[in-house]
Amino acid sequence: MDGFTFSVPIRVRFADTDAQGIAHNSAFLVWFEVARVEYLREFAGGYQALRDHGVEAIVLESFCRYRLPVRFDDELVVHTRCDGLRGARFRYEYAIVRGDETVADGRTEHACVDAVTLRPTRVPGWLADAIREAESA
Amino acid sequence: MDGFTFSVPIRVRFADTDAQGIAHNSAFLVWFEVARVEYLREFAGGYQALRDHGVEAIVLESFCRYRLPVRFDDELVVHTRCDGLRGARFRYEYAIVRGDETVADGRTEHACVDAVTLRPTRVPGWLADAIREAESA
Amino acid sequence: MDGFTFSVPIRVRFADTDAQGIAHNSAFLVWFEVARVEYLREFAGGYQALRDHGVEAIVLESFCRYRLPVRFDDELVVHTRCDGLRGARFRYEYAIVRGDETVADGRTEHACVDAVTLRPTRVPGWLADAIREAESA
Amino acid sequence: MDGFTFSVPIRVRFADTDAQGIAHNSAFLVWFEVARVEYLREFAGGYQALRDHGVEAIVLESFCRYRLPVRFDDELVVHTRCDGLRGARFRYEYAIVRGDETVADGRTEHACVDAVTLRPTRVPGWLADAIREAESA
Repeated sequence: MDGFTFSVPIRVRFADTDAQGIAHNSAFLVWFEVARVEYLREFAGGYQALRDHGVEAIVLESFCRYRLPVRFDDELVVHTRCDGLRGARFRYEYAIVRGDETVADGRTEHACVDAVTLRPTRVPGWLADAIREAESA
Repeated sequence: MDGFTFSVPIRVRFADTDAQGIAHNSAFLVWFEVARVEYLREFAGGYQALRDHGVEAIVLESFCRYRLPVRFDDELVVHTRCDGLRGARFRYEYAIVRGDETVADGRTEHACVDAVTLRPTRVPGWLADAIREAESA
Repeated sequence: MDGFTFSVPIRVRFADTDAQGIAHNSAFLVWFEVARVEYLREFAGGYQALRDHGVEAIVLESFCRYRLPVRFDDELVVHTRCDGLRGARFRYEYAIVRGDETVADGRTEHACVDAVTLRPTRVPGWLADAIREAESA
Repeated sequence: MDGFTFSVPIRVRFADTDAQGIAHNSAFLVWFEVARVEYLREFAGGYQALRDHGVEAIVLESFCRYRLPVRFDDELVVHTRCDGLRGARFRYEYAIVRGDETVADGRTEHACVDAVTLRPTRVPGWLADAIREAESA
């Protein structure tokens, strides 16, 4: 999808739905996270590589726009890209599509933190390099 | 809390936490929802009253800023207000506090829809009146 | 895996974990459900086929034995089989493995119910036939 | 409720429901957990007291029987008792009621483990004493 560097398929689980018969608004944040985890696996050795360096990436902000209802068993694709790297911070943007419809889009803001103190720490050089390389490809 | 009309207490459940030892980012959207449901119970006969009129309120957008990590068993208070009523749409704003710290804030945008077709429908007059009365009190 | 007719891969999501650093006990029930849904897709036209006939399958009982801790990003395989078809009822059994270790096993008991009244209704003949054929293969 | 020593109220959240219009089967395990946490707060200084001693309680088994459908906004009471203390292990039993109906019952089996190694460790004496006192009252 134009403007995105990576994508991951998601099948809507029955547990994701609510009594309105559609996927619950909180499920989309979990799908965003799945896309981030797979992105890091693809381009940067996986999220565990970060943790192995004593670093965690926390979520500072989440935003999601729900454009169309999503239902049980729908096959979705979560497109994502990472940008806005600066100091401890970075951002992911997302578009979730079903066939040729965009059902949701959004973004999450993140900071790297020390795994023990949870205080902000600069994005490790190897990770910043891996993200820049992925995004400029 | 200044600028908010209603609040509801939340205790962080173990199931809300993740392997970072803090509440997962998606849990905050569930807490926002609990606050909306209790707000409607307090001021407008409950969410079920809406459904009994063949109306559902869907979520169009969610935004959450995570300011401080929240941990298992923390006692939080979710403050909320409703505004931005116009046609089918309305908005909730939130601040989640722990003692005298604001740990998160955010907003959700909503539309009333027909429960069967999921098409937008004007916020029922009785509900708009109830919200306006609550917010002007 | 010996004694099972079907399997589905699951990757442990970050949202599945809790502050003990392992997957939360409730996540396993969601994985069981994913396996049931994929089983019905493989052998019986999908869960939606049931719903299209005005039938829902509800859960009467769940049992899970957690044998080994499961962690973020673990690659699991959920093995399942369906048996115990009688009247409105049927049963799924499960073993969740990671490599050559069984990390959990369990079972769920189900009943077909009328989608509107939620009252028990005989498992439809076409579904019973599809399950029997799958399990005798 | 006869045979139970403790209870906690639960309100069914919208996020707990699924597209069948009823609470999802995995939500009941979360409610069981809420009851355990509150039980330990009431009788034994809270779950955090355990963690402060370097001990975690893990779940070895869960069983739930879903007797009646539970819906959004239902007011439930989770009754619980703890028994079967032996070595590292103990058991909770539960009945979830709505008014005078039992909507679900179940049990969970647990073991105390060292928080670092996750290896079984005897239930601390102070905790065993607190549970025995609560249950014999």
